This record gives sequence, C-alpha cells and structure tokens, in this order.
Amino acid sequence: MDNFASAARRLGFSRDETHAFPALRTYFLQVRKQSELLCEPLTIDDYGIQTMPDVSPPKWHLAHVTWFYETFLLKPFLPSYQPYHPKFHYLFNSYYETAGTFHPRPERGNLSRPTVEEVYRYRSYVDEHMLDLLNRTQLNHYEEIATRTILGCNHEQQHQELLLTDIKHILARNPLRPTYRVDLDTPTGHAVAVEWGAHPAGVVEAGYDGDGFCFDNERPRHKVYLTPFRLASRLTTNGEYLEFMEAGGYENVELWLSEGWKTVAQQGWRAPLYWEKIDGQWWYMTLAGLQPVNEQAPVCHVSFYEADAYARWRGVSLATEEAWESVASKQPVTGNFVETMYFQPAPARSDTAVAQIYGDVWEWTRSAYTPYPGFRPLEGTLGEYNGKFMCSQIVLRGGSCVTPQNHIRASYRNFFYPADRWQFTGIRLAEEQA
Amino acid sequence: MDNFASAARRLGFSRDETHAFPALRTYFLQVRKQSELLCEPLTIDDYGIQTMPDVSPPKWHLAHVTWFYETFLLKPFLPSYQPYHPKFHYLFNSYYETAGTFHPRPERGNLSRPTVEEVYRYRSYVDEHMLDLLNRTQLNHYEEIATRTILGCNHEQQHQELLLTDIKHILARNPLRPTYRVDLDTPTGHAVAVEWGAHPAGVVEAGYDGDGFCFDNERPRHKVYLTPFRLASRLTTNGEYLEFMEAGGYENVELWLSEGWKTVAQQGWRAPLYWEKIDGQWWYMTLAGLQPVNEQAPVCHVSFYEADAYARWRGVSLATEEAWESVASKQPVTGNFVETMYFQPAPARSDTAVAQIYGDVWEWTRSAYTPYPGFRPLEGTLGEYNGKFMCSQIVLRGGSCVTPQNHIRASYRNFFYPADRWQFTGIRLAEEQA
Amino acid sequence: MDNFASAARRLGFSRDETHAFPALRTYFLQVRKQSELLCEPLTIDDYGIQTMPDVSPPKWHLAHVTWFYETFLLKPFLPSYQPYHPKFHYLFNSYYETAGTFHPRPERGNLSRPTVEEVYRYRSYVDEHMLDLLNRTQLNHYEEIATRTILGCNHEQQHQELLLTDIKHILARNPLRPTYRVDLDTPTGHAVAVEWGAHPAGVVEAGYDGDGFCFDNERPRHKVYLTPFRLASRLTTNGEYLEFMEAGGYENVELWLSEGWKTVAQQGWRAPLYWEKIDGQWWYMTLAGLQPVNEQAPVCHVSFYEADAYARWRGVSLATEEAWESVASKQPVTGNFVETMYFQPAPARSDTAVAQIYGDVWEWTRSAYTPYPGFRPLEGTLGEYNGKFMCSQIVLRGGSCVTPQNHIRASYRNFFYPADRWQFTGIRLAEEQA
Amino acid sequence: MDNFASAARRLGFSRDETHAFPALRTYFLQVRKQSELLCEPLTIDDYGIQTMPDVSPPKWHLAHVTWFYETFLLKPFLPSYQPYHPKFHYLFNSYYETAGTFHPRPERGNLSRPTVEEVYRYRSYVDEHMLDLLNRTQLNHYEEIATRTILGCNHEQQHQELLLTDIKHILARNPLRPTYRVDLDTPTGHAVAVEWGAHPAGVVEAGYDGDGFCFDNERPRHKVYLTPFRLASRLTTNGEYLEFMEAGGYENVELWLSEGWKTVAQQGWRAPLYWEKIDGQWWYMTLAGLQPVNEQAPVCHVSFYEADAYARWRGVSLATEEAWESVASKQPVTGNFVETMYFQPAPARSDTAVAQIYGDVWEWTRSAYTPYPGFRPLEGTLGEYNGKFMCSQIVLRGGSCVTPQNHIRASYRNFFYPADRWQFTGIRLAEEQA
Repeated sequence: MDNFASAARRLGFSRDETHAFPALRTYFLQVRKQSELLCEPLTIDDYGIQTMPDVSPPKWHLAHVTWFYETFLLKPFLPSYQPYHPKFHYLFNSYYETAGTFHPRPERGNLSRPTVEEVYRYRSYVDEHMLDLLNRTQLNHYEEIATRTILGCNHEQQHQELLLTDIKHILARNPLRPTYRVDLDTPTGHAVAVEWGAHPAGVVEAGYDGDGFCFDNERPRHKVYLTPFRLASRLTTNGEYLEFMEAGGYENVELWLSEGWKTVAQQGWRAPLYWEKIDGQWWYMTLAGLQPVNEQAPVCHVSFYEADAYARWRGVSLATEEAWESVASKQPVTGNFVETMYFQPAPARSDTAVAQIYGDVWEWTRSAYTPYPGFRPLEGTLGEYNGKFMCSQIVLRGGSCVTPQNHIRASYRNFFYPADRWQFTGIRLAEEQA
Repeated sequence: MDNFASAARRLGFSRDETHAFPALRTYFLQVRKQSELLCEPLTIDDYGIQTMPDVSPPKWHLAHVTWFYETFLLKPFLPSYQPYHPKFHYLFNSYYETAGTFHPRPERGNLSRPTVEEVYRYRSYVDEHMLDLLNRTQLNHYEEIATRTILGCNHEQQHQELLLTDIKHILARNPLRPTYRVDLDTPTGHAVAVEWGAHPAGVVEAGYDGDGFCFDNERPRHKVYLTPFRLASRLTTNGEYLEFMEAGGYENVELWLSEGWKTVAQQGWRAPLYWEKIDGQWWYMTLAGLQPVNEQAPVCHVSFYEADAYARWRGVSLATEEAWESVASKQPVTGNFVETMYFQPAPARSDTAVAQIYGDVWEWTRSAYTPYPGFRPLEGTLGEYNGKFMCSQIVLRGGSCVTPQNHIRASYRNFFYPADRWQFTGIRLAEEQA
Repeated sequence: MDNFASAARRLGFSRDETHAFPALRTYFLQVRKQSELLCEPLTIDDYGIQTMPDVSPPKWHLAHVTWFYETFLLKPFLPSYQPYHPKFHYLFNSYYETAGTFHPRPERGNLSRPTVEEVYRYRSYVDEHMLDLLNRTQLNHYEEIATRTILGCNHEQQHQELLLTDIKHILARNPLRPTYRVDLDTPTGHAVAVEWGAHPAGVVEAGYDGDGFCFDNERPRHKVYLTPFRLASRLTTNGEYLEFMEAGGYENVELWLSEGWKTVAQQGWRAPLYWEKIDGQWWYMTLAGLQPVNEQAPVCHVSFYEADAYARWRGVSLATEEAWESVASKQPVTGNFVETMYFQPAPARSDTAVAQIYGDVWEWTRSAYTPYPGFRPLEGTLGEYNGKFMCSQIVLRGGSCVTPQNHIRASYRNFFYPADRWQFTGIRLAEEQA
Repeated sequence: MDNFASAARRLGFSRDETHAFPALRTYFLQVRKQSELLCEPLTIDDYGIQTMPDVSPPKWHLAHVTWFYETFLLKPFLPSYQPYHPKFHYLFNSYYETAGTFHPRPERGNLSRPTVEEVYRYRSYVDEHMLDLLNRTQLNHYEEIATRTILGCNHEQQHQELLLTDIKHILARNPLRPTYRVDLDTPTGHAVAVEWGAHPAGVVEAGYDGDGFCFDNERPRHKVYLTPFRLASRLTTNGEYLEFMEAGGYENVELWLSEGWKTVAQQGWRAPLYWEKIDGQWWYMTLAGLQPVNEQAPVCHVSFYEADAYARWRGVSLATEEAWESVASKQPVTGNFVETMYFQPAPARSDTAVAQIYGDVWEWTRSAYTPYPGFRPLEGTLGEYNGKFMCSQIVLRGGSCVTPQNHIRASYRNFFYPADRWQFTGIRLAEEQA
C-alpha cells in the first residue's frame, strides 16, 4: 500500500462509505473522467459560450479545475514540474487574489483560444503529472498532498455541477432551444402528500465532525439552540407553485421582501426561470429539451425571493440551516443525484418521513451565509475558497439532481445570492415557533 | 386622567423610565418640537438637497413624519378629517407599497414645492388635529390610537437621527464645507485602555420582553445558544484605526470579504467617510465643521466591510447581535446620545466594565438582519415597517451620538447594507470560540 | 464720451439697431438687471434644484454668469481686484478645462451654499467692480475689455434663456405642477395657412459679416452652394403634430432614424415633452401653468428625432442651416421673443412671406454642428466657448419665445443633441431637390 | 447569354472595369467563395466569439449574408422556395425592423447553435437555390433580381471586411495574442515625404453618376461649393503619430473635442487601439500577430476624436468628404486592398501626387454623415440599409487594407461613430481656407 493511501486513510478517505474508492488515484481518475463524460454530448461550438457573467464556458470549467491541481499540487510539490503554458495561470485562476492577477470573469466567453482540443491536451498533461506525483514514494508532505488532492477532486465535483448548470443556461438562452442529450429518461410518478414532522426545541450540534473530507466552512462543529419547528416531508411541487402563480403571487407586494419586489419588477419575473407559456400551456427547458411542466415534480430554478414569497403566501416559512441539518443528519445520503441521469428533479415517490432531503434541488434555507463561531479558513491562498464570500448570500442545503452523490453531506453548505435562479434551487417549507 | 393616558399606561408608557413623560400628548409635542429644533440652524437653501438616493432632504423628513400621523391616525380615526393637500399622500409616503404609489425616492431632491414654509404649515395643521384626536373622550380604538401614536413618535425619532445624518452628508458634500452649528462643544479626553470581558457559553434569551414600546423586529423574545466569547470594553478609536490604515489595511486583499474588496476598489476607499488629508494631516467633517481627527475618539462612518477587515487584521471578530445584547442588557441606557449635543462620538472616559455600549456610534455586529424565530410583522400597511427589509443587511446595535436617548433599548435592532458609511457607525471588537 | 464707448463703437456696438443702447455700461446693467427680474417669481426653495444633469439650478446660473466677468475681466484687467470667495472659481466654472478643475456638473444641485442671498451679494460685488472697471480712463486693453464685456453680456443672455428653460423643467417635474407666473397672457389666434416659398439653386454666402458682435462659430463668412429648396412659411403647429401622433407616428419604425427609434423605445415617448393626457384631453406645462394644448400654436419641446420623423411622415424634410439663413437674412429680427412675456410660442398671425422665422421656437435644421471652413476659435480659455462642442450635435436657428430679441441674428447658431427636448425647440418643414 | 447577364449589363455591371466578371453568377460565386476563404484559418472555437456588441461572431457574419439572399431574393422570387430553418429569419436579421423582430445584437455571441458546420450547410443550401434562381429563364423581375443580387454581393463584401476587422478584435482581446495567419508578408519600405496639393475654390459635383452599382447613400449626384483647400499627399504615419503621443497629445485638453476628451479619460486612451508597450517598446496586434510598430506605415485604429486632435496639434484639419472626393475621383482605384494580403496598412511607396487615397485605411473626413440633398432611400425594407443611420456618425472614405478592391469607388461613403476604433481607420491631413 502506498503512502498516499495511508495518508488518505488517516483523512478518513477509505472509511467513509460515501467515498468508497480503493485509493486516491482511482478516485482522482474517476473524478477527472466524469468531467469529460459530462461534456461528451457537446459540440465544439458549445464549449466557449458565456451567457452571463455568472456562467462560465464549459471549456473554462475543464481548464480551471485542471489549473487547481497544477497550482496547488504540481508546482509546489512535484520537483522540476514545468507548467503547461505560461499564461494559463492568468487565464484559469478564478478568483484567488493572493495567487496573482487573473483574467476578468466577464471576459471568459471571449477566449476562442486555447481551443477545446488544447484544453483537453492540458488536462492530459496535468493528469499524467498528477499520477506521477501520486505514485512517488520519496516525497515529504504526503498528508498535505493527499488533503489537497481530495480538495481538488471535491472542487472539480463542484464544477461538474456547474458544468451542467451552465450548459443548461447556454442551451436555454438559445432561441433554437437545443437539447443537451436526447436519450435521457424523464422522471414520472405522483408526488406523495406533504406531512409536517414536528421537532422539539433544544440545543443541538451543527457542522462537520467526521474524519472524512469537508470544506472549511462546515467547521467548527458547534452548539445551537433550535426553537420548536415543523418541516415539510417533501419539496414544493410545480403544481403547488402554479397555485401561487395563479393566485397572483407575483403581483402581490405584501408577499415579497423589498429587494425581491424590486427584482420582480426589474426582471419582469412571472414564473421560475426557464418556464415559457406556449399556446396557453407552461413548458420549461430541461437538459432533455423543452418539456411540459410536470406538476408532480419539485419546482426548480426559483430565487430565494420567490421561495420566501411562496412560503409567506402559504403562511409558513423556510427552515434555518441548523434546523435543516438536524433533520438531514438522521437520513441516509441517497436521492436523485447526477448518477440517476435524469438531470432534473423528480416527483417525491418515497414514503419515508422526510423525502427528497438530499438531491433533486438545493433547498433555500432562511439563513444568511455567515461564519460559524470560531471559524478559521484554510491557510494561504486556499483560504479564499469559502470564507471571503460570507456576506449577502443565503445558505442552501442538500444537493441537487446534478450533484455527484459522494460529494454531499448533511453538513454541506452551498451559498448563492438571493436573486440567483440559474442553479437547481427549490423550496422546502418549514414552520417555527419562538 | 384621560383615556389615552390610561391606554398608554397599559402599554407600559408611563412605567418605563426611558419613556418618562407625564402623558402621551406631552410626549408627542416634545418629539414634534425636537424635529424643528434640530432644523433651526438650517438656511432655507439647505432644506431641499438630496446628495444621494439614500439621503432625503430635511424638509422631506419633516413632511414625511407628519404624513405618518395623517395616514395612520387622522384619516382612520379622526371623524371628518380633511387631508392637508391631496397630493401629499403621494409625495410623502416613503415606501409603503400597500398604501398606494409614491414619489420615487431619488426624486425627493427635485421638489422645490411645497416650500419649507408650507411644510411647516403642514406640520402645524397635523399637530393641531392630532391634539384634537388625543383630547377626544368619545372614541373607540383608544388602545390602537395610543399604540400608533407611540409608534409615530418613535418613527419621528428615527427620522431625527436621519435628519442629522443627512444634514451632515449634505454639508460635507459641499466643497465649502459649511458648518451645521458653530456653538458645539468638542469632546475631549483620553480613551481608557481596552479590556476583554469574558462571557461563558450557554442558552440566553434575546428580544424584547418588557411592557413598553418596541418595534416588531425585536420580537418574539426567544432562546439562543451563545458560544463563549470575549467583548472589548470600549469602541475602536480613530488612533487604532489609523494603525490599520498605515499598515496598508486598505491595500491588503487578505483582510477583506470579496464584496468589500470590490467596493474598496470601485469607490477608492482609503479612509473612513468624511476624512480628508490636508497638508499631510487627517481631518474629518463633523456637524461642528472640519476638525483634525481625534485619535482618542471612536472611529465613525466605516462600513461593515471596513469593520470586518479591521477586526480580521486584529485577529479577532465582531460580536453576534445576541452576544452583544446579552452584555448590553445588563448596562444602563446612558451614554453620548443626541442630548449631549456633541453630535460626534467622544473618547471613552468611563472605567466601567463595558464603556460606550450605548450611544457614540452604532456598532456593526456580525449578524445578518433576519427575522427572529416566530416573527410576525404588524398587521396591514404598518407591517411594511421592518419585515420587508430582512435580507442582505447587517444588524447594528446601541444607538449613536445623534440618537435620542429615550429611543434606545438593549433589544433595539438597527440595520444597514454592508457598504453603507453615511450613518454614525463604528466598531467594537469581539472574539468567539466554537 | 468714455473710451469704452469708443471701443464699443469700433466693435459696431452703437450702430447696430439690435444693440440700441447708449453705452456699454447701460447695456451691461440692463443685462444684469434682467437676469434678476426673471428670478423674481421664484421662492428660495426653487433656486437650488437640478432636475437632470443638463439642467442647472437657477442660483448656479446667476453665479456662473457673474464668475465669467470676474474671471475674464476683473481678474486680468482690474488692478488689485480681490475675488469674492476663493472657492467660487471652482464652483462656478462651467466647463473651461484650461481654467482649472471645476465642480462636476451633476453635483450642481447638491450645493445649498452659497445661499441665494449670498449669490446676490456676489452679483452686487462683481457689478460694483465691473462698473469701476468700465469707468476707468487710465487703462490699456480697452478694446479687449469692451469685447469681453459684450461677450459676457451675450453669455449672460444665453443663460437668461436657460434660466427660463430650466425653471420650466424644475416646475414641470414637480407633481404639484406649480406655476412660474400666474399673471402671464396666453397667446391666441388662428395660425395662417402654410405656403411653400421656392428658392432657386446657387452659390450664397453664410456666416456673420457685420461689424457688431457675433460668436466665433458664426465665422468666417463663406460661400456655399444651395440646391433648389422650398421652405414652409410658418412653423408646424400642435394641431398638425397631433395628426402625426394620431396616425401612429410614434409606433411606425419606418419614419425614424435608428437612434431615434431606440430613444423612443427607451424613453417611452408618445408625445412632446411636457404633454400629459388628462381625462382624454392633451394638456401641457407652460410657465403659466398647466394648459390645454393649443392646436394653433407651434409644437414645442420636440427632439430632432421627432422633427425628422414628422418631416418624413409629411414626405418632406428639414432645411440645411445655410438654406435657412439665406431666407432669414432677408427678414427683420422681430417675433415672439422673451420681451412679449408669453414665455410660450404663439400662433402664426403674420401674413408675411415667412412667419415666425425668429422667435417662438428654435428650429431644428438638418445640419450637423461642424466648424465653418477656416474656422478659428477665440484665443485662450475663451476658445472653449463653442469650438469644442462641434461634434454629434445639430444646429438650431432663429431663437425662441424665451430668447432676448437683441441677442439673435440671422447667422446665430445654436446647437443641441438630437435627443434633447427640454429646450424650446420646434419644426419648420422644407423640401430639397438635388 | 442569359437574361440576368443582360439585366446586369443594363445595370453597368459588365462595363465597369472594377466589376470585370463575365456574368452575375460568376460574380456571385466568387463573392461567396471569398467569405469562406477568409474563414479558413479559423478554428471552430473562433467562429462564435463576440468580444463587444459592435463585433459579430464570424459564423454570424457567414449566416447573416446568406439570410440576405434568402430574404430579399429567394423568398420573394423563387417559386416554392422553402426556408432552410424557420428560426433563422429571427436569428440572422441584423437590424431590418420592417422585416420583423430579430435577435438582439449583444446576444449574438451566446449562440452555440447553429454550429459552424450547420452554418456552412445553410450557405450551401442557399447557394444552390440562388444558382437555380439565376439560371431560370422564365421569370419576371429580372432587373430587380439582378439589382438585388448585386446589392447582396456588395453587402457580403462589406461583411468580408467586417469579418477580418472582427477577427482581429477577437484575437487581439485574447491574452494569448493568437495569430490569424502566420504566412502573411509584412509590408516594408520608407514612407515618401508629405506634399500639400493645393486645390482651388469652386463648385464641383459629388456623388455617384456612373451606370454601375452604388449604394443609395451615394446619390443623388449634386453640386457643392468647395472653399480652397490643400490635401496631404499621403496618410499620417505611425512615426508622425508617435510624435504627437510623445509631445503629450493625449494629456493636452486644448487639442480635443469635449466628447473626445471625456472618452480619452473614461477609456484611458494613451495610444491607438491594439498598441501595447512591452519593455519600453511599442508593439501592436496585426492579423499576422504581435509586431513592433512600424513607424513608416500609416497609423491605424484611431478614432475620429484622435484624428481631429492630431490634426489640430499639427495646426491643420481633416478634409470634407466632398473635397476628398473631388481629389479621389481623379485617381485610379488601386492600392493596398485585401487582395495584397497584407491585412495591414503599408508605407506610402508611390510617388504619385496623391498616394494611398484608396486602400490602407479608411480616412476620417470632417463631415457628419447626413443625406445628400434630395436623397431617397431604397423602397421597402432595403431602405433601412443606409438612411436610418444618418445621424451622429462621421463619413470615412477610400477603403482599407481589408476591403475588396472591386467594392470601392470615389463616391463610396462609409460611416462610423466618432469614438469607434476597431475599424481600420486612419488620418489624412487637410487644410481649408474660408
């Protein structure tokens, strides 16, 4: 057994079922392969498009995740490593200010070069050197290298989700409404009835405390007091959301946060993103193409403002992130993840107490994204990964239909701005007492 | 004793020391008078200026607070009340969407009419009718009228603070740097040394539970778990903040939230608002005119981004709003409020355990402004007062040197956007453990 | 007779009927007085408002024209002159880059100080010193001083027109629709029928060639070839323009320049500026208050885009500035100027061959504002007066109902951007052949 | 001989040397082929990029010119023609409002589909049907079809120039500074000395009067009076422009139009577009890659503002478009056009009286782009081709190093906004007298 496996084991790598790979290299190769598989249905033409500053071109994602290994592993740890190209550090640094200046985000769609072909060569070059690194037996810093490799793989998994999210935006923005893959199954079935599980007040612990991988923002594990709350047993469906729309939800100022109401007016929102009415019938874009809205499936691509307004209209609320975590941590991490290959949320078929708590859609909580008490970011440039975004964003939990299953945990904190809609985001209702 | 006094007493009005007025009418008249006293030093020319959308012209403040009584008291409760002017409802509604359309905020500085003179006539007219209302003995709804009158007075007090805040902005924006009042004392003295009071972990209660007045956002009182923390015994001084500036704080990306760093770059921030360097010496605008920066006085007019970066540079943090409240609720509500007539923060002279916890500057907490568990806004249009702003803002606590003393409580929650600097906002450091 | 009168006479001052003043001082005093008379109906509150960057507050106009004499006459020519205030040079320089930095235009409405009262004191101070200068008999540079004084008076007259134009904008933007003067007569009468005077082809001369005052942009006099053209004998009326509106002119893309069509869409234009429909009837703001649209009066407050689209709809065009001048130069400079005190355009009552060629409204030509061949701007800072604006603007001719009569000539060139509507601008149709 | 050739001959097609093609079909096919040849060096990745709203992706150009034939020839004249794709009319209409709604210009870079491959299929499909149309002998409207085909070919030639212009922008924006073609010759040689040809005053004719093709904006031919002028015998060189830069031209406000000065400040201009200083040496991007600035070659990629400021600095001016035309019309249409395959301007090697009057760079005139007297646009939708842009733009003359030679005439009017720099635009000095 090599030394990395040993370091990885110390990191809890092989003990955690959700990371059930025989060794770090296998895991690394699987993740690298998966990114490329997700891009297989694309034409060369698709790879370079940036439909809005939030979206990155697919080839940029492929190169950026590669840059991550080059910058944080190969350059510091592989002796005499030669970077693939002197300007790629500038082009594919996303936002790490302490790593030097970088290409402005809104300019990513202006790069016809490197070509798609060259980006794949860049990936091969880095993979080869990463395998060299992970094969070495005469190195110091095993633990740091294993830690960073695992971080790099988790980072790449985040970008796998973004790849599908951004591809959907790119295709949906096109008046031709092209289809990502024509061979996808469409989820069917009738959503189970909602039940409201009651949870008593009390001090609980939140945050990661396992010995596997987690992001710095999930730590430290700490105590919080939960007031009594009830949590809906499944996600809000398109059918339920249509009731809100038909009741004039988007026209009723009393339901909206002030910022939400301004956004509704400025953007002309009258339905979730990707919905369009054709001949009196609602359709939406999916990665399988334009489909009639499925009233049984969870509503998706709504902003926090919409989730909040919908909850207010129902006379309830959203959960705090800690309330959510206290329920989710008792559930297995299974659900409609990217592995089901629906690439869209599916009706709640489970009759467990809490359905869809993982997968399907990221669930908006009512918690602002702030540091946990005693939070310490990673040292150095990697400290920019999460901490510097802890302002003005909202926590989402649970992963989505485009998240890799082994990437998610009960303590996982995702975060987006309250107006963001292009992520696979949805609604689970909750009710709190003081 | 009239029925309003009786209703007011039931509302805790006369029992609460901080509202020590013999009766509601006296309180009402005192508040009304105070707004006009604050405007006495102004020229007619000063009353109409709006230097940025956040700022309102002084005469708009005077009219808007008057509109509040007209709309929520005289129209619904005073039989056969005739509004002063048919268009004032449109002009002086600030943001109550459910009360009808209103004049756009950035247009407030375009209104030469009504003239200042007419605004004062409008005030007299409404005062006269309010006294009529409060004198009546044959009315229903005493309790509602008393409640709303108290709310209206608290609302006007908030605008008294805004009046001084906005007047400062108006005068400071003028290259002539005019002075609001030339007869003000300047606070002096040496700031006491900082001590770090330690506070143990545990479940505490936060939120208002008295029987006096409070805003809806201070309720319900609820339990929270506090991790162990230490709190600085006084505010950060200008001298301490200068150390941060001189150490390159504004140039060091590692200290800043991502949004903060962008704002620093876009706005060219290199010092707090109102500071300017003249012949190598730092000066700042005060309501007493341009003065050399007093290194012993609390730093003021910093954004949340700056407060957060400063704390990070010192290796510590800011307090959560509940941690702050747990300390403040044990202190008397005294300090450098508007009544001292400094109209600027003063050096911490007290040697009590926690100095300056009230008054001087609003203290940025590290808590996002979100509803308390089980929060219910007021019914109807008045429900727009606080609840709809519970997104993307940060809680500030403690009042400032331009806040009326009897307006503040330990549970009082103020809120502004993290980039806002024109309020009297400052820094108290804290340190948390998990 | 003093030396200035003599210098003025050499400049054609006393010979030109349109400048029929006994002497330069009298002229100077008359102009200075007139600016203040125009402001008499204002409240102090009106003086400081800037409703858009193009508009300047009335008190800024009063101070800026005063600064002009101080800068270009008193400072260079009056020995030991002490400027009124060290910062007024910064505040009241409009755009003369070579005279130093200046207060940004959009900030003019943020200046509550100097107060109106102080601006009048500033005017008195400068007037007193100007009279001193114009009384001296022991000076060099008489000719330069006379020239600049005449330029300063013409400059102030331009600002008298802007004063009324901007006051109208300030009052009309106010939802209370206040009236500038309630004692104004409203012009009446039926517009005469349009006739189309035919003008043959040939080489003519354009530009100023008299010995009185003119602006640098009217020179040099030069030859141009005119193709045969016909010119409408009067201005387009509101009634005629209403036909265009009712025929869907604002909805018909074929009538519009590309930039015009974009502007119509972005601004939502459906009528001239200041028109509003109340209970199915068109009204417009005048300086005498809100009035029903007078179908016999010339249409006013239309942009070049609207003038151009209207002409295209009628199957004709607008005149070139030289064609216009060739006709106007044969007409006396009489008409509905500011002296009639209508302050709005009046129906064409004349039965002369060409009515309304002067006064009523500035007539959009189809000529871009470019330099005449061989154009030389004034020397030094005064060279910034006209030349630097010779790009992207359109020439207007003939003066308006708010122009002083003695300010206008056949060769006078006004210029505004094609989207501008707040000036008193209207339409005279023309037709050209190749 | 077929009927189209006959119609074409009547249109002057085969008689004009500059259109020396045996027949319309040959001409059509040559033009169609040339567009594709120009794109041969591109990677698939290059075809979809839009670096700014003014720039269109290469594949959009290829499809749009194809749409032109489909819309204006195949649909109206080829019986039972089936459009290639129902949505291409929406996607590839550029700005013809009367032809229906169209895809917003700034969105062109968001279209990954149709793919490059499909755009080429679209081209083949339309070519095939165009050849069918041009082969028919049983049609009405020969003359209209021939006219529109010639217009379509000229339209495609304009887009050939734009293709190279936009490709340069796309590649130059890329930090990798990729090269369009590595096999291009670089022009060499020493620029001849400038001489100033004198031209007397008088009435001349301007505009097209031949019997070949011209655009509607070149008509009608009409008389103009020219004041005496002198015209530089060659274009301004990079070396001469460097003198202006080194003399502080970009920092000297006196040289600039007001709009130009604002643009210089806002954009931070300190050199022509595409120039960059590397280790103290000026380089610029060319289609052959990054090269040291050639001081002998004409300056290129300057705005009108820069051309105007440069001329002012030299104490002279630019020519009016008619003065330019009066000189150019006496010269043969030869020069450094796209056929030389330099794709960049070349030093003036000719010792003729007027060198470089055609080709190399488009020459900014001092004339605003306005209609000629008696101008009539084409009927119908094609009337939107030129006329609706006759506002706020400046006329340029003479063609450039990326213009097809047979596309240019003495009367040819190009037009761009005064701030535009991405076209191949340069400077020829002139001097005028009144």
